[in-house]
Amino acid sequence: MHSKFSQMAIQKPSIPKGTRDFSPEEVCKRQYIFDKIRHQFQLFGYAPIETPSFENLSTLTGKYGEEGDRLIFKILNSGDYFVQLKISIKEYFKILYSSAFYYIVKNSIDDNIDYTEFYKHFKSDSNINSQKRFYESDFINIDNLRIREIFENEMNSILKEASFNSYIVNTYNENKVSDFIDFKESNYVKILMESSFLTFFSELPSNTLTSQISEKALRYDLTVPFARYVVQHQNEISLPFKRYQMQPVWRADRPQKGRFREFYQCDADVVGSDSLLQEVELVSLYDSVFNELGVGVEIHFNNRKILSGLAEVANISDKLIDFTVALDKLDKIGEEKVKEEMLQRGISEEAIQILSPLFQMSGDFQSQLTSLTSILNSSEIGMKGIEEVRFVFEKIQKLGLKSSDLVLNLTLARGLDYYTGAILEVKAKGVQLGSIGGGGRYDDLTGIFGLKGLSGVGISFGLDRIYLVIEELNLFPESIQNSLDVLFINFGEAEADKAMELSMQLRSKGIRCEVYPDAVKMKKQMQYADKKAVKYVVIIGEEELNAGNATLKNMVSGEQSTLKFEELVNSLDI
Amino acid sequence: MHSKFSQMAIQKPSIPKGTRDFSPEEVCKRQYIFDKIRHQFQLFGYAPIETPSFENLSTLTGKYGEEGDRLIFKILNSGDYFVQLKISIKEYFKILYSSAFYYIVKNSIDDNIDYTEFYKHFKSDSNINSQKRFYESDFINIDNLRIREIFENEMNSILKEASFNSYIVNTYNENKVSDFIDFKESNYVKILMESSFLTFFSELPSNTLTSQISEKALRYDLTVPFARYVVQHQNEISLPFKRYQMQPVWRADRPQKGRFREFYQCDADVVGSDSLLQEVELVSLYDSVFNELGVGVEIHFNNRKILSGLAEVANISDKLIDFTVALDKLDKIGEEKVKEEMLQRGISEEAIQILSPLFQMSGDFQSQLTSLTSILNSSEIGMKGIEEVRFVFEKIQKLGLKSSDLVLNLTLARGLDYYTGAILEVKAKGVQLGSIGGGGRYDDLTGIFGLKGLSGVGISFGLDRIYLVIEELNLFPESIQNSLDVLFINFGEAEADKAMELSMQLRSKGIRCEVYPDAVKMKKQMQYADKKAVKYVVIIGEEELNAGNATLKNMVSGEQSTLKFEELVNSLDI
Repeated sequence: MHSKFSQMAIQKPSIPKGTRDFSPEEVCKRQYIFDKIRHQFQLFGYAPIETPSFENLSTLTGKYGEEGDRLIFKILNSGDYFVQLKISIKEYFKILYSSAFYYIVKNSIDDNIDYTEFYKHFKSDSNINSQKRFYESDFINIDNLRIREIFENEMNSILKEASFNSYIVNTYNENKVSDFIDFKESNYVKILMESSFLTFFSELPSNTLTSQISEKALRYDLTVPFARYVVQHQNEISLPFKRYQMQPVWRADRPQKGRFREFYQCDADVVGSDSLLQEVELVSLYDSVFNELGVGVEIHFNNRKILSGLAEVANISDKLIDFTVALDKLDKIGEEKVKEEMLQRGISEEAIQILSPLFQMSGDFQSQLTSLTSILNSSEIGMKGIEEVRFVFEKIQKLGLKSSDLVLNLTLARGLDYYTGAILEVKAKGVQLGSIGGGGRYDDLTGIFGLKGLSGVGISFGLDRIYLVIEELNLFPESIQNSLDVLFINFGEAEADKAMELSMQLRSKGIRCEVYPDAVKMKKQMQYADKKAVKYVVIIGEEELNAGNATLKNMVSGEQSTLKFEELVNSLDI
Repeated sequence: MHSKFSQMAIQKPSIPKGTRDFSPEEVCKRQYIFDKIRHQFQLFGYAPIETPSFENLSTLTGKYGEEGDRLIFKILNSGDYFVQLKISIKEYFKILYSSAFYYIVKNSIDDNIDYTEFYKHFKSDSNINSQKRFYESDFINIDNLRIREIFENEMNSILKEASFNSYIVNTYNENKVSDFIDFKESNYVKILMESSFLTFFSELPSNTLTSQISEKALRYDLTVPFARYVVQHQNEISLPFKRYQMQPVWRADRPQKGRFREFYQCDADVVGSDSLLQEVELVSLYDSVFNELGVGVEIHFNNRKILSGLAEVANISDKLIDFTVALDKLDKIGEEKVKEEMLQRGISEEAIQILSPLFQMSGDFQSQLTSLTSILNSSEIGMKGIEEVRFVFEKIQKLGLKSSDLVLNLTLARGLDYYTGAILEVKAKGVQLGSIGGGGRYDDLTGIFGLKGLSGVGISFGLDRIYLVIEELNLFPESIQNSLDVLFINFGEAEADKAMELSMQLRSKGIRCEVYPDAVKMKKQMQYADKKAVKYVVIIGEEELNAGNATLKNMVSGEQSTLKFEELVNSLDI
C-alpha cells in the first residue's frame, strides 16, 4: 500500500545536491561577467566553439586520473539498457560455468579409485579441454583475486555435497564415461553451477559493469572536449587555432560550500603554436578582463621547466611532486616548516642546502631571476625555463598592464601532471578567496586523440569565484539588479489599451516595460513594482486618459510628474 | 589479448549521435539569435532564471507521458551505484525464494500418501505461513504476469527432479517432519532455489531497476523545471511571475535530420495571471522578435475551448483527439479526405454534418468568428473560447503588428494534453519548415508540485529551426561571420613588439585583433588571414617600423594604404 500511495503523493520539490537554481538577479549578474569575458576573448581574436554536453564515455575516461574518472557523471543508455547488461552477465557466467565444470571434474576424483579409463577420456575429450582452457585463461584473465577465491570456495562446497560426489563416483564405477560427459548437461549439475551465480553476482564490482549500461558521460572540463574537437575537425580549422568556450561542466564531487556539481568554465586556448607571444597575450587578456570587471588582480607566473631544473640540480628529479607540494606552503608555514616537510618527504639535507637560495629570493623580477640563475646555471632545462619567464616578463613590461600585477611565484605548481611550460594563476587583491583563474602550457594537447606534436596554452576563468569577488567588492553595476524599467498601472480596459500602446512605443526605444495584467487594487500593483525594483511607475487613470496625460513616478526618488503621452515616449530616458 | 590492445589503441574521436559541435561561425550565428530573443524578452519585462541541467528523476518522470519518460536521459548514480542495485536484487530474490519454498512444499505433495500429520505441521508452522504470505502478497504484488509464469515453470521443473521428489517423499515417510522444516535451510534446497535466480534475473525488466541505479536525469524541457522553480521559490517571487529561460534540453529521441538529442529551448512564460492581456503581449512578443530577426511570420492562433465546444455540439467530446488529429490535416489532404478519416475514426455522419460549416469558413477573422458562433452558440465552453479569441484579435488589431500576420487557425491542435486556453504556433512565411515556435495556456501549471490554481501561459522559440530559416533567407548580418577584424603580420621580434602595442590600442577601441605568433613566411600568414575571413591585415616590416608607418590592407577590396601608427589607431573604423 505505502509504495503506491507515496508515488501519488505530491512531491515537495527540490533539486539535486550540488546544483543551483539562479534567480533573475543572479542570472543577470552572471551574464554581466560572461559578457565582459566574452567581449575580451573576442577582442583578442579568440573564436567561440561549443561542444555537446555529453561526450562518448571513452573520450573522457582515462584523461583525468583515477579520481577524475570516478567523478565523471555517466549517462544511462537509453532504451532497454539492461538487456546489454544481462547479456554481459550471462557471458560472464558462461565462462564461470565452463571453468567450474573443469574445476569440479579435476577435483572430484577419488584417489582410491583407478581412474585410468576416466583419465583417458578426460584428457582426450575436446569438450573438457575447452573447459580447461576457459578455466586456465579466460576465467583467470577476467577476474580479480577476490573473485577467484570465491569461485574456489563455492566449488569446494559443491564438491562436499555427498550426493554429488557419490554421483561422480558411481558414474565412474559403472564405467559410464560417456554418461559422465552427458552429466555436465544434466539439470542436476546445471542447477549446482547456477546456484553459485548469486554469490558471484553480489561480488561483481560496479566498474566492470558501467561500460555495459553507459556509453555517454557529461563533460568534466572543456580542455579534453577541445582537444577532441581539434582532432576531429582538423581539416576545417587553421592553425594556430585560438578558441574560447564558455559552457557548464559537471563533476560528481562531494558538494560543499563553494563547490558545485554543475559549474561554468570560461576557457581561452591556443593550439598549434609554440610562440611565447601567446603567453604574453594571455597575461594581457587576464589583465584586460579583470580591469573591465574592476577587479585588481595578481597574476602569478611560473614555469614547469624551472621547477624541473631545481629538482635536477638538487638531484631530486624523482621527487619533483614532493618538492613542489612542500614549496607551495612557503607563504603559509614559512621557511623552517617547509624544510622540515621536505626532510619528511625524503628530500636530503644536501638537496635542501642546494635549494636554500630559493627561500631568500626577494626584490624585483630581475634580481629574482639573477638569484635563480645562480642556482640553475648547470641545468639546461632550468635555464630554458628562466629564458621563457624572462621573455614574457620583458614583453609585458614593455606593453604595460592596466591594473594587474605580474608576479614571479616559484612556489606555484598547479597542473604538474600536464603543464610543461608556463603556469599561471590569478588572485584577487584584497579578497581572501584563493585562485579565480589559472592556466598553462601543455606540449602535447591532442596526442591522446592521435594528433601528435601540437602544443597548447590556455587560461581559464572561475566564474563562481569571480562572482563572489565582485559581490564582496560591491562592483556589480546597479543597472543589472532589476529586470524592469517601467510598470504601467492597470486601471481598466480602456486605460490598459493605452498603456499597452505606450509600452510598445517605449520598448522600441529600448526601455523594458510591462502593463500590470489586471485592474486590481493600486496597492497590490505598487507592491509588485517594489518587488521588481522597477525604476518608474506610469499611472494612467480615467482622468489622465481623457486629458492625454500620464503620471510618471520615479520609484527611487519618489518624484512625480505629469507628462503628455508623446512627452513620456520621447523624453523618458533610462 | 585483443581487448587489452584495443583499449590502448588511439581513438578516432567522435561525438554521440544526435549531438553537435558548433564551429565559431555557428556559435556566432546562434548567439546572434539568442541576443535578439533575449533583448525582446527583457523589453517585455520577462526576467531570466536558470535551473540545473539535471533534476531529481522524480521531478521529471510522469510529466511527459509514457513515451516522454522513455526519452528522458537518466544519470547513473555516482560512487558504487551497483551496491544498491545488488541489494535490491537480493531483496527481490529473498521474496522469490520464500515464495518458491511455499510453492514447492504445496505442490510436491503426493496424492497417494496420507499427509495428515504433515498438513498439521504445514498449516501451523509460522515459518511456512510467512512463506505463504510472501507468495500470496509480496510476490504477486511486485511482479508482472510474465515473471509469475516463469516462476511457476521454474518451480515445476524443480519439482520434476526425481531426486528432489523422492527426498520429499522419503522425508515424509520417515515421518521426520521437523527435519522437513530444516530441509528448507539445507544446502540442497538452497541450491535448487538459487539456480532459478539466473532465469528470473534475465527476465527482470529494465525499468524496475532504473530507480535503483539512477536518481537524477537531464531536463527534458524548460516548463517542468519552471513549475518546480515556482513552487520551490514561491516565497521569493512575486506573482504574476514573468520569466524567460534559454537553456539546452535533452531527449533520447531517435536522431534524424533536424532532430537532435541536445537542443536549446527559449521560453517566455507568465504564471499567476489569468488576464488575456498576457496572450496579447505574447503575440506582440513573437512579432517583435521575428521582426528584429527580419523574418516575416504567420502567428497561428486557436483556443482549446473552441475545439472542446465543437466536440460538444457534435456530441463527440470523447473523440476530441480523433477529431482534432483529422481536422489538423485539412490543409494537406482537403475536406473530403478529412471527413473520410473522421468517419474511420468513429465520428458519425451526423457529427460531421454539424461540423461541416468548419470546412467552408473563410474571409477575415470577423466573418470566421460569425460562422463559428453559428455552430457554437449552444456550447458554453465554445462561446467562452470565441470570446477569448475575439479579445486577443481585437487588442492586436488596435496595437498593430510590425511584420507578422495573426491568423485564426481552427485546425491548430498542439499540446491538447495540457493546454486549456490559447494555442499558438508560428510559421515563417516563404519557407517550408513547419513550426518555428509555439505555446499556449495551461490552467494548472504548478499543481503537479502541490501549488494549485496558478494559471500559466507561455511561448517557446525553436532555435534550430529559426537558424535554418535565417540561413535560408540569407539574413545573418555579414559582420558576425568572422571572428577577427585585424591581423598583424609578424616580421620578427621588434616588429611584433610594435604590433602587440598597436593591437592593445585597437582593442581598447573595440577592434578585434591579433598578432600572428611566429615570424613565418608571409604567404602562410596571409592564408591564415584568409581562412579567418579577417577584414584588415596590417603589415609592419623593418622599413615601416623605422619610418613609423603601417601598411593597411583591406582584405575585401584589396585596397592598400600607408598610415602613421597614430592614424591607424585613431582612424581605423570597423
